[in-house]
Parts: sequence; structure tokens; C-alpha cells
Amino acid sequence: MSKLLIVGTVAFDAIETPFGKTDKILGGAATYIGLSASTFGVESGIVSIVGDDMPQEYLQMLNDKNVSTEGIEIVKGGKTFFWSGKYHNDLNTRDTLITELNTLADFNPVVPTDFENAEFVMLGNLHPSVQMSVIEQMKSTPKLIVLDTMNFWMDVALPELLNVIKHIDVITINDEEARQLTGEYSLVKAARKIFTMGPKFVVIKKGEHGALLFNDNDIFSAPALPLEEVFDPTGAGDTFAGGFTGFLAKTQDISFENMKRAVICGSNLASFCVEKFGTERMQIITNDEISTRLQQFKELTQFEIESN
Amino acid sequence: MSKLLIVGTVAFDAIETPFGKTDKILGGAATYIGLSASTFGVESGIVSIVGDDMPQEYLQMLNDKNVSTEGIEIVKGGKTFFWSGKYHNDLNTRDTLITELNTLADFNPVVPTDFENAEFVMLGNLHPSVQMSVIEQMKSTPKLIVLDTMNFWMDVALPELLNVIKHIDVITINDEEARQLTGEYSLVKAARKIFTMGPKFVVIKKGEHGALLFNDNDIFSAPALPLEEVFDPTGAGDTFAGGFTGFLAKTQDISFENMKRAVICGSNLASFCVEKFGTERMQIITNDEISTRLQQFKELTQFEIESN
Repeated sequence: MSKLLIVGTVAFDAIETPFGKTDKILGGAATYIGLSASTFGVESGIVSIVGDDMPQEYLQMLNDKNVSTEGIEIVKGGKTFFWSGKYHNDLNTRDTLITELNTLADFNPVVPTDFENAEFVMLGNLHPSVQMSVIEQMKSTPKLIVLDTMNFWMDVALPELLNVIKHIDVITINDEEARQLTGEYSLVKAARKIFTMGPKFVVIKKGEHGALLFNDNDIFSAPALPLEEVFDPTGAGDTFAGGFTGFLAKTQDISFENMKRAVICGSNLASFCVEKFGTERMQIITNDEISTRLQQFKELTQFEIESN
Repeated sequence: MSKLLIVGTVAFDAIETPFGKTDKILGGAATYIGLSASTFGVESGIVSIVGDDMPQEYLQMLNDKNVSTEGIEIVKGGKTFFWSGKYHNDLNTRDTLITELNTLADFNPVVPTDFENAEFVMLGNLHPSVQMSVIEQMKSTPKLIVLDTMNFWMDVALPELLNVIKHIDVITINDEEARQLTGEYSLVKAARKIFTMGPKFVVIKKGEHGALLFNDNDIFSAPALPLEEVFDPTGAGDTFAGGFTGFLAKTQDISFENMKRAVICGSNLASFCVEKFGTERMQIITNDEISTRLQQFKELTQFEIESN
């Protein structure tokens, strides 16, 4: 079991979907990643920043799941990053209603001493310079650095993004972002181009269509579990990343074969996340539920066939 | 090995993609289905209609692959159905430039005596009344009737479509069409609604994202092979349907387990179809190529994992 360092937002979200709406609830990439990774029992620590409007009970909830919040700076009199969005009826697209950076505007991440030698690092979606600063603070070279990002940073901070991409092992990115980053429509070609930028592994997230894992000439395709109802897609990508990295930190095996399992674990956990608003579902998930659904993933994808 | 009856268009297509354009070349749903099914060595027969502008060599090419053209009516002085389309850069969308129904406008399908007792029937995309007429001509109840259709028939002939859907076992349909037919966004709910309309099996085609097979509470997800280059998507859905039905006709086993294999075979063959213009690739495909790629499909999807 390795330590997992997570950098990302801890935030308030107000979400509206066709099924209802919430007031400000706990959100943020690092929160979802931490909750998801915690299902593997790994010791993880979050580097983030919040205002003192962040209730202590939320941080305590993370601590109770073996997610250290020592690296979360609490700014006295400051306000926590706030995002509000409304999903369209198909739940695949959304409008951002409000983005208040608040304390996040002046975030200088500080990696706690306890995690300076973490073997696994998950860089959640944030400004690439913040992600880079975390890499630079590591006292020993991590076994694996995973980076998540989004189109926004390609638009406003491409040089910084390309710089951090040079220093990572795995990038998780959605299909449209992979196309934007590389100018290649074919995801096979896009992945190959990303290899030349630094990462040895590329994970392309396709939402309801699952995810693809690329390494050299190997490709693995993991489906998303077809769901009767998606209640709230917020945090699904982060939950995927947390499951992916959490599984790898637990098993300490970064072979392609094991990464396939990690992708399945990430997909599996993401399928829970979308069942309720925000982090609600991930806070109460049980090992039995995870095992049962893992079995469903096997049934969903496994077949036996003779070459004809 | 069972006989397979195929109804659908045999046509001329003129296709433009970002990679080039063709003059009138051989196309049509039944052509793609027949070529694809022929890779399993099944004896199939096409019911269709063409004008005498259809070169004898094209029909001979089908005959050489054990696809009977006895049921293709050749109208003296008539012109064959002609479709022309131009694909957009992403190859996922296209504009229809020309549709000339020609002889297809007055098509009264006649099932040849040799195929009146065929155990497998593949109803390719055509007016649902034509599809229904073929079912009515069968002398004994087929073991399996598979129907392919499209949104166009939902718009202009919904009652006739719903009627033929009552009489079939498997429907193949794309995701948007499944949503249109049922009014359900969730594909799980859409499939369940389609069960109440008649079919016991629902195959939802998702193009580059693969296909889903539904039966009662069982779901199987097959990926599409991630390709470096899609050259021409024309006929991919029909090739999928031909591979699906051809495999079932060969193995004569319509269990869910075997249908999973059939979906993989369909996906596999469709991945070849898009590599060249029109039917070009399917005309020269070899068994070795098919076996090799089937192995790639296994590597793409198979994983081993312990429940945690």
C-alpha cells in the first residue's frame, strides 16, 4: 500500500439537474478523488485551499475515511471556491451559472512533509502551474504521476499545461479535449501524439461510452455501466481518476495489465457517483456494493469466442 | 449451418469523404449484409430490386461468395436505386446529396422458393411494409428474425414500423433512433420499452463507441475497434448486422451468450468495412485477417480482476 498525494479543489457546488437542485454542497475535484481512492483503504492526503466557511464536519468526514486534510490551507475570513451549474435534459451538457474563485485565486500549494515522498500523485484539474508546483515539491521521484485537466487550460494556459504534461506518466482527458490538444480526430492518433509530449499512458474518458487506455501499441476499452438513471454527473470524471489512482496505489503495480483493472475500478466507482447529488453517494458507498457491481462489469464485457 | 434470407437495397452509391470521392459504386444495405454474412460461409439469398443498369459482374461477385441473387428482380429499362452523400470532416455526420428511388419506388419483394423456409431472416433498412411482406411470405416460422431500421421510417411510416416490430426477435438500431422510438433518453429504459413492442433482443449501435446488446435484464457491451483512420463509414451498420446474423446462422445458437459473440463478430467485420470506399474492403477480406482482428478485440476488452 503506497501513499497517494492528491491536489485539486475542495469546493462548494450548487447543482441543478432535471431531477432537482441543491444549495451549496460539498464538491471539488480533490474531494471526489479522495473519496473514491479511500474505497481502496489507501492513505491519501489532499493539497488544496478553502475559506473558513468550509464546515469542519466536511473535513472530518474526509479524515474518517483516511483522507488527510493537513495539506488543505484554511484562509481566515476567506471564502471557498464556489461553482454553480445547470445540466441540460440529456445530462451530457451543462451551463456554468456561477464561478467564484475566492481563495483559489491565490493558491500556493504546500505539500505536507508526510506526503513529500508519496509514491503516487494525482494532479486533479487545476491551473497547470499549481500542478507543476506540486511535482517540484516532491522529495523523491514518485512511482506514478497522473494528471487530469480540461479544455479551459488549453485555452488560457497552454504553455504551462504542455510543460506539466512533460513531467507526468498518465494523463486522463476526455475525447474532445484529446482532439483539441492534438488536432487529431482519431483517438488512436491523438494518443500517439500525446505520447510524444511526455506521458507513457493516456486515458481517454468518454462519459457514458466508457474509457480507453493507451500505452505504446496496446489499447484497452472499458465500458461505462449502462444506467437506468443518471441523477447528477458532477464529479464522475474525478471519481474515475480517484478510483484509477487509488487502485494503483493499493496494488503498487503500474503494468498495463494492472492499469486495465484500474480503469475498470474507476469506471465502476464513477457509476455510483452519478446516482445521487454531489458526493452524497460516495460518502455512503460500501465494499459489498463495489464488489457486486464489479461483477456486473465482468458480465457486461466478458465473452468467449473461437477465432473462425 | 442455416440458410439466411436477406432483404434490403442493392444500389449505386456515390460517396465523398475528406479522403476522396467515388463515382457510382456498388452499395446498398443487402449488399453489405450479404458480403459480411458470407465470411461465415453461410448460404444466403438477397431479396431486392435493381434496374438493368446493374452490371452482371456485381451480381456474379455476390454469387461467387455464396450469396444467391435469384431474389433480386431486374427491371428491364429500369434504373437502380441511387444514393449520393458527403461526409463531414469528423465522419460522424453526412449530408445526403441525391436520393433517386428509381425501381425501388415500386418494390414488391418476392421470396424465392429456395429461401421460403430459411431459418434466419435479416430485414435490412427499407420501408417497413416491404419488411413485413417478406415475413408474411415465409412458409415456416424462422428461428430468428432480425430487423434494422432508421429514423426516417419513424418519421414517415411509424404505424407500419410498429407493426413489423411486433413480429421480429431482434432489432438493431442506433442510439438516437432508440431514443426517438421510445422517448427515453436512458438506453436501458429505451431497450426495456422496445421489449414491450415485440423484440426479445435489442442491439443499440453506437458507431465509434461500439454496441450494446440487451435481453431481459442482461446487458453486453462491445467496443468498436479504435481505428487510426476511418476512410468511409458507409455500410458499417449493415456490415455489423450481416456479421451478427451470419454468425448466428452459422452457429444456429440464439442464446444470449452466443449473441454476445455475434455482436463481437459484427463489430469486427464493421471495423474492416470502413477502411476503404464502399464494399471494396469487404470484397477482398480474408479469414486470416478476420481471425487476427478478433484476437485484437479480445485484447481490447478482456481483463481479470478480483472483487476487492
